[in-house]
Amino acid sequence: MTIVKRTSRDIRVANRFDVLRHILATSEASRQEIAAETGLSFATVSNLVSELLSLGLLIEVGFQDSGGGRPRGLVSANPDGGVLIGVDTAETYVHVELFTTALTPLATAEEHLHPEETRPDQVVGHIVSCVTAAMASASITPDRVIGAGISVPGQVDREGGVSVFAPNWDWHDVPLRELLSPRLPMALHLDNPLRASAVAELWFGAGRGKDDVVVLTLGTGVGAGLAFGGSLFRGATNSSGEWGHTTLIPDGRPCHCGSRGCVEAYVGAPGIMRNLQEAAPESPLLHLDDQTLTIAALKEGVTNQDPTAVAVLDRTARLLGIAIADIVNLLNPEVIVLSSWVAAQLGQPLLDRVTTVVAESAMSRPLAAATITLSSLRGNPASLGAATFALEGYLSSIGVPVGGVVRGPAKTTYSNPLTK
Amino acid sequence: MTIVKRTSRDIRVANRFDVLRHILATSEASRQEIAAETGLSFATVSNLVSELLSLGLLIEVGFQDSGGGRPRGLVSANPDGGVLIGVDTAETYVHVELFTTALTPLATAEEHLHPEETRPDQVVGHIVSCVTAAMASASITPDRVIGAGISVPGQVDREGGVSVFAPNWDWHDVPLRELLSPRLPMALHLDNPLRASAVAELWFGAGRGKDDVVVLTLGTGVGAGLAFGGSLFRGATNSSGEWGHTTLIPDGRPCHCGSRGCVEAYVGAPGIMRNLQEAAPESPLLHLDDQTLTIAALKEGVTNQDPTAVAVLDRTARLLGIAIADIVNLLNPEVIVLSSWVAAQLGQPLLDRVTTVVAESAMSRPLAAATITLSSLRGNPASLGAATFALEGYLSSIGVPVGGVVRGPAKTTYSNPLTK
Repeated sequence: MTIVKRTSRDIRVANRFDVLRHILATSEASRQEIAAETGLSFATVSNLVSELLSLGLLIEVGFQDSGGGRPRGLVSANPDGGVLIGVDTAETYVHVELFTTALTPLATAEEHLHPEETRPDQVVGHIVSCVTAAMASASITPDRVIGAGISVPGQVDREGGVSVFAPNWDWHDVPLRELLSPRLPMALHLDNPLRASAVAELWFGAGRGKDDVVVLTLGTGVGAGLAFGGSLFRGATNSSGEWGHTTLIPDGRPCHCGSRGCVEAYVGAPGIMRNLQEAAPESPLLHLDDQTLTIAALKEGVTNQDPTAVAVLDRTARLLGIAIADIVNLLNPEVIVLSSWVAAQLGQPLLDRVTTVVAESAMSRPLAAATITLSSLRGNPASLGAATFALEGYLSSIGVPVGGVVRGPAKTTYSNPLTK
Repeated sequence: MTIVKRTSRDIRVANRFDVLRHILATSEASRQEIAAETGLSFATVSNLVSELLSLGLLIEVGFQDSGGGRPRGLVSANPDGGVLIGVDTAETYVHVELFTTALTPLATAEEHLHPEETRPDQVVGHIVSCVTAAMASASITPDRVIGAGISVPGQVDREGGVSVFAPNWDWHDVPLRELLSPRLPMALHLDNPLRASAVAELWFGAGRGKDDVVVLTLGTGVGAGLAFGGSLFRGATNSSGEWGHTTLIPDGRPCHCGSRGCVEAYVGAPGIMRNLQEAAPESPLLHLDDQTLTIAALKEGVTNQDPTAVAVLDRTARLLGIAIADIVNLLNPEVIVLSSWVAAQLGQPLLDRVTTVVAESAMSRPLAAATITLSSLRGNPASLGAATFALEGYLSSIGVPVGGVVRGPAKTTYSNPLTK
């Protein structure tokens, strides 16, 4: 029997997220405004703000006139609250970004992964050297780092810090945290890009303040990050969201997952290339050995009203729209965000067509509740989300005993490395 | 901006559900056992048990030896705690069941709905007369009734008590609670059979003690009741779970929802009849004007190894299995329950085939986490679930001011109608 855990601590952590999320989204806010926006009581907000101030995540920035009453204190994210590291590890690159605790970018570094570099020690080596390079470029010392989120493709055991399965590297049960810890002495939070992109949207994008959010990653791979009740939904074993491997066409195209007719086989970048190849095998838009170039050419073709490009976009959008209508009918979400590079490239023309197909296929009540939108996040959502996991991990650890000592604001010793 | 509500009251209600759920599943339990099973602290359990005792929902039933320590008090559900009413309204019948607060059946009544009786006043008339008949048959007076749950087909606005859309009756925004209230003076809780069946599994079936549960209703209509984190997931507008109207085969069979190729068009009872008709138009198993008879004949045929029956079951199970594998990949649930009359009829032969297809189609990690099972609930799960909604509504109302008076156990005046 699974033991369901619901404690007042869970609520306190969730409320802490809500308060900080609201402050990060505004340049400055009063406790009254935060209470109004989050639905929390003024007393709860005051309490949480004091806690975040004492941790050094917030600073007092002045007062606001309250129309006759006492002036209201304003708080803002502390630009010197510490450093968060977000690592987006993909099949072809490692991308690292450093942020302040206000999630302002500080530095970035990227290394190319060669196709034959698939061994765990090789990938770990690139992560470590890339993080080290980014820290050096901004003169960040390890004592300023609050934590690092590491996104890796495939299925991840988050608690154990293990990459359970990464099909493109043929990884099974690789103990990543164990391999990384000796070389990156900081709190490490492992997850995959679906969930990193979803948490980035919840904190900073179209999912902010929403309960039921679906973030669809449309890149080489395809998947869904799900959030219900304002929190990430992971499923029984943190492997929810494999929407790319739900069946779009029974007995359809073979998929690299071993099944047939998967969503990813039609609307992932290689699937879209195949749609193009089927429509016009000799098309000059097609660059058989380069997905990025092909998708860029397709975008250009649509802009120029090239009939092949338009037909391929139409077909892709129709298949994608059917799969998104299924999500609308099954999950009745408030927001569906199209994220990652294929969505960014094909942009508004893709969104317009998809929206039309969904309107034809979905049932009217869930359709009326759902907004479909392109991600408005700038930069790499997976590294932003990975850094957000580091921030969430830190916020969750407040008040939890570590080595017999309670971290956090109850006493005058704080766990913020900058104030230690 | 949606305001996310997480309060200590929400937690207290959820914990109250957990404690009572555990006690209802056992004949008697000690506070220590309840704490161990629910993961709640002993102090919290003691507090909640005292509250449920004072409300008359529990009784003390004796002591248990604790191996040297103080004997442990045992509690049990009170068979005289009040009456819950569960109403399953379907297109062809109204089925009413009366239960004790221990969810032991007390009485039942059923009325047939003629196909032309589709007006709200006609359906409401049958609900009222059927409830009245059931109460009369067990000599239950209204003052003994804690509440009634009313399940109606289609999409429901639960808070407003409105049937938003019932396609087979062409109902749009019918104010059911307003129509029923003057004639059934009791707390009324409106919802649909997908959610009623799911809550019945959460409290009394394969979903008990599980976090992430999917209950698939396989009857004339097809749909999913979803529970995440141990609680029903309703979506943004209580219209999640329209799995029957997700696309199984793009541009496939027309569906009565207006779309094509829906799951329901292949694995709902009329869809299965069509599978049979396509395989063997002259089959003696086929009773074109009677779904129930056809499904029963198919079951019989499978038992007798009739090749047509076996082929139709194989095809149906293959399509159903693909659609269930999609749920496994997308949601990574712990349990998937096959419920309602088609699942009950086709039983183990259907389950065996579906399980094989899912194992071929789903990804290994979510597959390993998911148990697929037939519902083990006896009787009508929708009326049991509807009665459970009445119990949940009562448990949720404790401590909430009603007309300026706080209900519940904090004072010596209780809202249990039996102790008033």
